[in-house]
Amino acid sequence: MLSMRVVIVGAVALGPKVACRLRRLLADAEITVVDQDRFISYGGCGIPYYLADEVPDENQLMSTSFHAVRDVRFFREAKGVTVLPRTRAVAIDRERRIVAVEDLESGARSELPYDRLVLATGSVSSVPPVPGRELANVFFVHNLQNALDLKKALITEEIGHAVVVGGGAIGLEVTEALADTWNLKTTVVERLGHLLPQLFDANVAAIAEATLRAKGVAVHTGESLLRLEGEGGKVTRVVTDRRTLPAELVVIATGVRPNAALARAAGLAVGPLGGITVNEQLQTSDPAIYAGGDCVEMTSLVTGKPVFAPLGSLANREGRVIADHIAGKPVRFDGVVGSFIVKIFDSALAAAGVTQEQAVAAGFDAVRVLVVGYDRAHFMPGKAILVLQLIVDRATRRVLGFQAAGPANDAVLARVNAVAALLKHAPTVEEIGQLELAYSPPFASAMDTLNALGNTAGNLLDGLYRCMTAVDAVAALRDPASDVLFVDTNAAKSAAPYIERYPGRWVNIPYQQLPGRLAELPRERTLVTICDSGIRSFESQVVLSANGFARAFAMEGGLNILKRSGIDLLAPCP
Amino acid sequence: MLSMRVVIVGAVALGPKVACRLRRLLADAEITVVDQDRFISYGGCGIPYYLADEVPDENQLMSTSFHAVRDVRFFREAKGVTVLPRTRAVAIDRERRIVAVEDLESGARSELPYDRLVLATGSVSSVPPVPGRELANVFFVHNLQNALDLKKALITEEIGHAVVVGGGAIGLEVTEALADTWNLKTTVVERLGHLLPQLFDANVAAIAEATLRAKGVAVHTGESLLRLEGEGGKVTRVVTDRRTLPAELVVIATGVRPNAALARAAGLAVGPLGGITVNEQLQTSDPAIYAGGDCVEMTSLVTGKPVFAPLGSLANREGRVIADHIAGKPVRFDGVVGSFIVKIFDSALAAAGVTQEQAVAAGFDAVRVLVVGYDRAHFMPGKAILVLQLIVDRATRRVLGFQAAGPANDAVLARVNAVAALLKHAPTVEEIGQLELAYSPPFASAMDTLNALGNTAGNLLDGLYRCMTAVDAVAALRDPASDVLFVDTNAAKSAAPYIERYPGRWVNIPYQQLPGRLAELPRERTLVTICDSGIRSFESQVVLSANGFARAFAMEGGLNILKRSGIDLLAPCP
Repeated sequence: MLSMRVVIVGAVALGPKVACRLRRLLADAEITVVDQDRFISYGGCGIPYYLADEVPDENQLMSTSFHAVRDVRFFREAKGVTVLPRTRAVAIDRERRIVAVEDLESGARSELPYDRLVLATGSVSSVPPVPGRELANVFFVHNLQNALDLKKALITEEIGHAVVVGGGAIGLEVTEALADTWNLKTTVVERLGHLLPQLFDANVAAIAEATLRAKGVAVHTGESLLRLEGEGGKVTRVVTDRRTLPAELVVIATGVRPNAALARAAGLAVGPLGGITVNEQLQTSDPAIYAGGDCVEMTSLVTGKPVFAPLGSLANREGRVIADHIAGKPVRFDGVVGSFIVKIFDSALAAAGVTQEQAVAAGFDAVRVLVVGYDRAHFMPGKAILVLQLIVDRATRRVLGFQAAGPANDAVLARVNAVAALLKHAPTVEEIGQLELAYSPPFASAMDTLNALGNTAGNLLDGLYRCMTAVDAVAALRDPASDVLFVDTNAAKSAAPYIERYPGRWVNIPYQQLPGRLAELPRERTLVTICDSGIRSFESQVVLSANGFARAFAMEGGLNILKRSGIDLLAPCP
Repeated sequence: MLSMRVVIVGAVALGPKVACRLRRLLADAEITVVDQDRFISYGGCGIPYYLADEVPDENQLMSTSFHAVRDVRFFREAKGVTVLPRTRAVAIDRERRIVAVEDLESGARSELPYDRLVLATGSVSSVPPVPGRELANVFFVHNLQNALDLKKALITEEIGHAVVVGGGAIGLEVTEALADTWNLKTTVVERLGHLLPQLFDANVAAIAEATLRAKGVAVHTGESLLRLEGEGGKVTRVVTDRRTLPAELVVIATGVRPNAALARAAGLAVGPLGGITVNEQLQTSDPAIYAGGDCVEMTSLVTGKPVFAPLGSLANREGRVIADHIAGKPVRFDGVVGSFIVKIFDSALAAAGVTQEQAVAAGFDAVRVLVVGYDRAHFMPGKAILVLQLIVDRATRRVLGFQAAGPANDAVLARVNAVAALLKHAPTVEEIGQLELAYSPPFASAMDTLNALGNTAGNLLDGLYRCMTAVDAVAALRDPASDVLFVDTNAAKSAAPYIERYPGRWVNIPYQQLPGRLAELPRERTLVTICDSGIRSFESQVVLSANGFARAFAMEGGLNILKRSGIDLLAPCP
């Protein structure tokens, strides 16, 4: 019997994973990987840390955990896999099962026959077609070569101002590198209304924005790039629809789209999001051809709709499934719930599932609830505040999404991983409330803040908890036409400056005294209870509601969420 | 209509939770909580951190996150709940629905009528009946008063040596406090064969033991306490069945058992583990009486068998369910998967579900698999090693348990929480392999070590991965009758001292060279591949197996697990 010939197009993440796993399962398969680039099998997600000098040597991004560089020789000797770099797959002849390839050094063309073909063609930068893109010192950080060029510019050129276009994860990671490591005066420009728009609702994304501003980064959202201007071929200015920014260095990180050109040309099915269509065995519409990673679109296990999820972690997991199926194992890849984490200076932000906006767009009657609480027992030194948000389908109480912000340690990771693990099982808010998260005081509270989030969502759905978002509450407070009265349940000392600043709109009744002082409150006004975190204001709102105050609301997240969102109620009038 | 009268016996964790939640749901219920102790509503799990001075003031353990002391007045004013401390529940008259109570100060007896009764009687120390228990400076740390006495002794007495009897979580947390904060020469004595015996299998518990030894703590396992000896009424020596230890201070932390005496006397059903029997609404055999927390036994959602899980986190979650059901909500508490985490010096250990030993005892054909990997991308500074173990049912591939050890940050928490969240859904190893854990380089690898654990378990079940535990491999290496040959796939420099130490039993073929050097290896011998972590040794074992080496095994965990388990192959002969 002839050994199986497997050709893989793409050698960054999914391609090498398929090759290595397949080698272990089929000792005598002939495995060939082609890639148009000269760099192969590198950790592209590490590029921002290479730019930040946390990873000083680019070879580390191309090395195994045991310090072997994953080059052509490594794949040949250790894995028995042939890798052809600087080789472009030009066309697929599905009838003859042949891939036509071109050697980009010599221009020579040749044919690679296959029994199974794997498309790992990745994604391409989705760069807005603006004038000036071709100027020097304009970068895209979508591949390692571009990152090397960018770092070289940082080291060798005189750069004072940087503009990052695109407030997604990569844009913000690069922003931190530029502002923190290289001390550049850095500005982020995002076209949509808030940062990280695919991953977070506006109220949690506000925490990312406040984090950046606190570190001296300027952030302009809802602002579109019009053109880049330069002198002597080098970029000097960024022009948006709102302003002109000085910039000796520009990074355009406006996202990526699936690179499905080769598949499309071969007549393979492509989905509504532009990614290659695959089944649960990651086969394309031609069962001899598999695809995975950034070039495909998946089914969301939350909404049931197509989703594009360009993540190195998914590429690795999918690669293993492709290899297993080629080797004859009965495997399946059900789809994607979506999970995400990013470090921004001293904050971590994480998400799983969909945002409220996405849930509503997918047809759910989606509500959201937010809590603020500690990441470990409140009596432990080193505790920090977590902000957690849940997106819930009102009728079924099913959890659709989760968002979190906290310190830049693993506290946020510990919560998002639990939710991400559960999401495909369509948990209810009650299941989140009862989650058996591991507990001891150095790591969690007895009732973890994530449990509290599930419980709070249940209280909201049951009508026990009646809340107002910080944004709405602040707007009412500042609106002369509103009848709102803030009932501050903190201690008197904390409340005093607010009472002075908002006469007639802010009163103080410390939490413990509220049940005995109800007579002091006007029944006809809209009452907003507020405390530090939202716990006492919730309990106080329950007391008010139970005692016939028809328009009593708790301000979710308390003073803490205001502080973390960059809202200062005591600042001079805007 | 008369308001509902609810009496709660026990005011530490579950009792106050029931009271406070119930108040929010039923504004006019009459809620009374009795407790024989003078301290109420305290965080008992924080006691070791109080002893360690990380929590300097005991009032912090009795305070809310907003610094209000949860005393009788707090419950009356803020919660509208009557708390009667120093009041013992003497008997329950179920016919008349009355609890007879005794005021421990005055000796006066009275009766509390109830519509619903909640038993939160907790647990009692399971102290071995050895002579000398009554000596001064012998402590049990099972309640706050005892912890206050212990800390006073630490501050005021001349103490050089401490012995902690019991190597469970509380014993080890107290050990750290005594050895680290108070610089006592501390010894742990555990009756069973390894530390943390209810939570970890021996191989992972060995990491806890090595951590303690590295910090100067002596550990004696498989050793029973016979008696305590003293002079002038104070303890001076601990006598075990193996040795006599000097000890001016002794802490007995040999576990707890459910305090079901009141329930039993009232004729309520008690289960095989001695805990009160409850249904999924946490009602006892008398539906007007609820119970939860340490005094009940639960059903394991993994084994389906009764389980005793005395955890403050469960008590809080159960308390909420009891209050909800009393208030008429359609709630249920399905049971317990078991989740756990402990900090021991610079290590964290965590677990969920059952150990291999427990799984086998419950009738499963349970296998275990262990991997070693980084907690974040291997190219990131600050990375650390995680040791993860999975317990799996061979036939169904269902995951039954998880154990982890790593640095004392939240990296271990982030993995155990994901598994704990999933366990009730009976995940297979494939589901662990495909878990969508959140990824970016500062927080995880693209293929998280937890994914690798699931994948490795699948490889084991499929027969692709053939492994030998570190303990078995080392035993073979040191057994003159064994034919074992270690194939060290590390670099030559790393392998050299082992080759010198184990002539004829250790050879070096670096990983990348192995496929080309198979002819050098003897086909008739037992080959054990070894590397740093287990990755290269796995791949090398696959190559050997595919090439007809019938007795090729990979040593799981590599040199890393040896180091973390305190096994030094280069140490002088034992």
